[in-house]
Amino acid sequence: MRFSEIVERLGAASASSLETHPERDPEVGGMSAIEQPVAGTLSYIESRKYREFIDSTIAQGLILPMDREMQERAAARGLVWIGSCNPRLAFAEAIALFYKPIQPERGIHPTAIIHPSTKLGKEVSIGAYAVIQEDVVLGDGVCVHPLVVVYPQVAIGDRTILYAQCVIHERTQIGQDCVIHSGATIGSEGFGFVPRGDGTWFKMEQSGYTVLEDEVEIGCNTAVDRPAVGETRIGARTKIDNGVQIGHDVKVGADCILPAHIGMAGGAKIEDQVVLGGRTVVSNRVVVGRGTRATIGSLLISDTEPGSIVSGYPAMPHQSWLRSSALVRRLPEMQQTMKQMQKQIDTLQAELARLQGQQGQERGDEV
Amino acid sequence: MRFSEIVERLGAASASSLETHPERDPEVGGMSAIEQPVAGTLSYIESRKYREFIDSTIAQGLILPMDREMQERAAARGLVWIGSCNPRLAFAEAIALFYKPIQPERGIHPTAIIHPSTKLGKEVSIGAYAVIQEDVVLGDGVCVHPLVVVYPQVAIGDRTILYAQCVIHERTQIGQDCVIHSGATIGSEGFGFVPRGDGTWFKMEQSGYTVLEDEVEIGCNTAVDRPAVGETRIGARTKIDNGVQIGHDVKVGADCILPAHIGMAGGAKIEDQVVLGGRTVVSNRVVVGRGTRATIGSLLISDTEPGSIVSGYPAMPHQSWLRSSALVRRLPEMQQTMKQMQKQIDTLQAELARLQGQQGQERGDEV
Amino acid sequence: MRFSEIVERLGAASASSLETHPERDPEVGGMSAIEQPVAGTLSYIESRKYREFIDSTIAQGLILPMDREMQERAAARGLVWIGSCNPRLAFAEAIALFYKPIQPERGIHPTAIIHPSTKLGKEVSIGAYAVIQEDVVLGDGVCVHPLVVVYPQVAIGDRTILYAQCVIHERTQIGQDCVIHSGATIGSEGFGFVPRGDGTWFKMEQSGYTVLEDEVEIGCNTAVDRPAVGETRIGARTKIDNGVQIGHDVKVGADCILPAHIGMAGGAKIEDQVVLGGRTVVSNRVVVGRGTRATIGSLLISDTEPGSIVSGYPAMPHQSWLRSSALVRRLPEMQQTMKQMQKQIDTLQAELARLQGQQGQERGDEV
Repeated sequence: MRFSEIVERLGAASASSLETHPERDPEVGGMSAIEQPVAGTLSYIESRKYREFIDSTIAQGLILPMDREMQERAAARGLVWIGSCNPRLAFAEAIALFYKPIQPERGIHPTAIIHPSTKLGKEVSIGAYAVIQEDVVLGDGVCVHPLVVVYPQVAIGDRTILYAQCVIHERTQIGQDCVIHSGATIGSEGFGFVPRGDGTWFKMEQSGYTVLEDEVEIGCNTAVDRPAVGETRIGARTKIDNGVQIGHDVKVGADCILPAHIGMAGGAKIEDQVVLGGRTVVSNRVVVGRGTRATIGSLLISDTEPGSIVSGYPAMPHQSWLRSSALVRRLPEMQQTMKQMQKQIDTLQAELARLQGQQGQERGDEV
Repeated sequence: MRFSEIVERLGAASASSLETHPERDPEVGGMSAIEQPVAGTLSYIESRKYREFIDSTIAQGLILPMDREMQERAAARGLVWIGSCNPRLAFAEAIALFYKPIQPERGIHPTAIIHPSTKLGKEVSIGAYAVIQEDVVLGDGVCVHPLVVVYPQVAIGDRTILYAQCVIHERTQIGQDCVIHSGATIGSEGFGFVPRGDGTWFKMEQSGYTVLEDEVEIGCNTAVDRPAVGETRIGARTKIDNGVQIGHDVKVGADCILPAHIGMAGGAKIEDQVVLGGRTVVSNRVVVGRGTRATIGSLLISDTEPGSIVSGYPAMPHQSWLRSSALVRRLPEMQQTMKQMQKQIDTLQAELARLQGQQGQERGDEV
Repeated sequence: MRFSEIVERLGAASASSLETHPERDPEVGGMSAIEQPVAGTLSYIESRKYREFIDSTIAQGLILPMDREMQERAAARGLVWIGSCNPRLAFAEAIALFYKPIQPERGIHPTAIIHPSTKLGKEVSIGAYAVIQEDVVLGDGVCVHPLVVVYPQVAIGDRTILYAQCVIHERTQIGQDCVIHSGATIGSEGFGFVPRGDGTWFKMEQSGYTVLEDEVEIGCNTAVDRPAVGETRIGARTKIDNGVQIGHDVKVGADCILPAHIGMAGGAKIEDQVVLGGRTVVSNRVVVGRGTRATIGSLLISDTEPGSIVSGYPAMPHQSWLRSSALVRRLPEMQQTMKQMQKQIDTLQAELARLQGQQGQERGDEV
């Protein structure tokens, strides 16, 4: 693809080297990372912090921030460049221009076992050895990869993709344009056991169901459980990574980003546009306010304010955590300081006592 | 189902509105959560903390604690109610009255591949594309869902359910009435590598096996490894949630509750009736004493006393953790206090020196 | 197997009871753990710490450290023994003498679906209901267990084993003698979403691929993602346990040991011979220096020095962590000490003021 075509097709591009060097319009073979540049490709630099890469890259061009100095530096090396207010987004858009995802075979594989009650939309693909049980609805263009199991009474919206080995449990409702990655389990039984009082546990049947709204992604080996009654719900456009646990009765809002190994205990409520660091834990019934950000590995045992940034285990406001965690490291030093202070106090006490004694004596002398 | 029938069938019910209002005996359509009440259903309230819900619920009845005020408040709104010393247990029992779990097709699916050496009990169900290898014993009423793999020399007790995509590795022994959820792996190889001393690792063969006693549940994508020699064992009636790791040679006692994302390193020993919070880690060979409780996200690197409650990362007695973790947040304040104390000490020293100097001078004067 | 044969075949054995008691050469039935000894077997004792077991074991022999006292104590009880500088390694070697792993059926199962473009090496085994898609290369002796899915353009080296239910995604390259355990997912899409700036997220296509070098092991339900561009790479002989997350663009070196539930965020770099404790998290782009060791449950948010030992959440040098974490427990005590110091200071100030007042008065008197 010609460089000029990329520039034209990138929505996020605001400027390019074509303005000053229209004659530089090479064929571009693809995209590459700035740390692993490949000749004949475009790479990208997020910010001035990485600008040294401009001088050494073997890529033939760069997506750059709107920074004239960086752009001139690239041009001086004969590189083509695209300027963007969001270079990472422009890079992602450019990858999409080149990338041709693997297309599974169209149609229904003869080994797929599909219950006669299944309602199939148009142009559905179902892979080898997939098993679709009774009363399932698959929308138009749904793509079921090999070895997937769909339990009864599931509805799956148009164009949703179920990758290999995932399991969709009974009564689950999945919206349009969702992606369920390999090995994920949606709508499995919540973990509900009630103490009988004699040290044993009574299983609470999980009669509820799970809902994924439109454009949700669920990562590999992630589980989204269904509750005893009512629903577990993941809001529209929320993206969930691998190995995540979404407990029964959790409500996740729209446009959230939940990286790998996050765990949400039963009844947690995550409002819209929450972005958590990987490995974060949210405790039972905790409400994570709209737009909250948590850094990697946080433990949220109490509600967070909308728009807050939290860190720590347990979590606290990020600024407090920065100070507290720095001081945890300095506790041995603080202890040392305290010991010295105690010595100083002891010395002061001794000297004061001596002084008082002297004064008493002097006064006694005077008497 | 009539309200009066529910009252009659609930073992845990101690009282009900039928005593004072026998004429109120509506048809009940099911159960619902107090935060998501559904008209025509019963809901439940665990404790006085949630009693405000009585005034606004659209449910037609409530399971309540043995609290006369709450019961009268419900009756005053025309609601039917059931009183119980354990409302949550009564709620769970009531759900079970209504819930009809999905029943897999009976019998052996023609696509299931079953080694001729398999010993099948009565009324065994085996789903599509399940694979049962040699020398496996399946007890009466065992239910193997689609796409399950059972490796050789496995024994599975009566009425145990294996959900879709789970894998039972060689030599595993599973008791009666167990439930293995989708994607779980039982009896997989323990992680055993011995340093050779030259920076490389020798694989220790995992020749042992895994035992699940009766009525054990194992969650989705959980792994229970087998050891190099001997056995990994999960005690009767212990319930394990999703994404848990049980390392080689771990012994878990009876009636334990182990929520999602718990990890147990090799050789850990969990005694009976232990209840851990989700995401807890137990280090190698640590012994968790009978009845220990750990709060969410704890790290147990040393043994716990029977009956203890622990928290923290690493864990300590819960009461200590409450104090310590509150003080971690207040470290910046403590540091500030120390600085002020240091200033006060410095001032005291200076003033004392001045005083000593004056006194010396005065005495000098006197001399 | 005769005891003498075991002694002969153990590379790590340096001495044995045959030297002093050649007549004691029993038939050995297998190996057992020292805490669960089995009659007729050999067990092992790692160090003097466990030497009391010598006096009570029902095993007929022991692998012991090079410790004359322990060896004589065993001989005095009539036990046979093998002395080794690395008893654990000798034990592992001895297990391998006895253990006969389950052998999957040879050949291609008739239900396996293999795309005609597949290049098969010699003596490949492919189990029931496995699905191999287009343009896949399987080396000599590759063993694919039942219900495995291999996506297009994957290459798998000689003798590599793929256990049941694992999924190998498009373009993945797996070396020779690797082991992929049940339910693992290799080469799945990295988690890449770029903020558009309006609260929504643009999916970055993951056009890269994943490489596992020779002799890598990947545990059950572990995921190794592929990146947007370039590669995710696991170095030769590195062993990864269950439930681990390796994010997109991560580079792991050779001979690393990564136990269960470890998580590595995008772009992390783990150098050779790193040994992390289970449940450790490595943050985005962090570089873990060659030979670093981290204790269980650490959080690495900054680079580590080669050869360092780190602990904590977030991690710090292990020695600092020992001191700091001990002091965290003692914070209530430190706070108490501070309060007492403050009282002492207050008293000192009061007494000093009184003294100054007296002195002023006295001097005033004198005037």
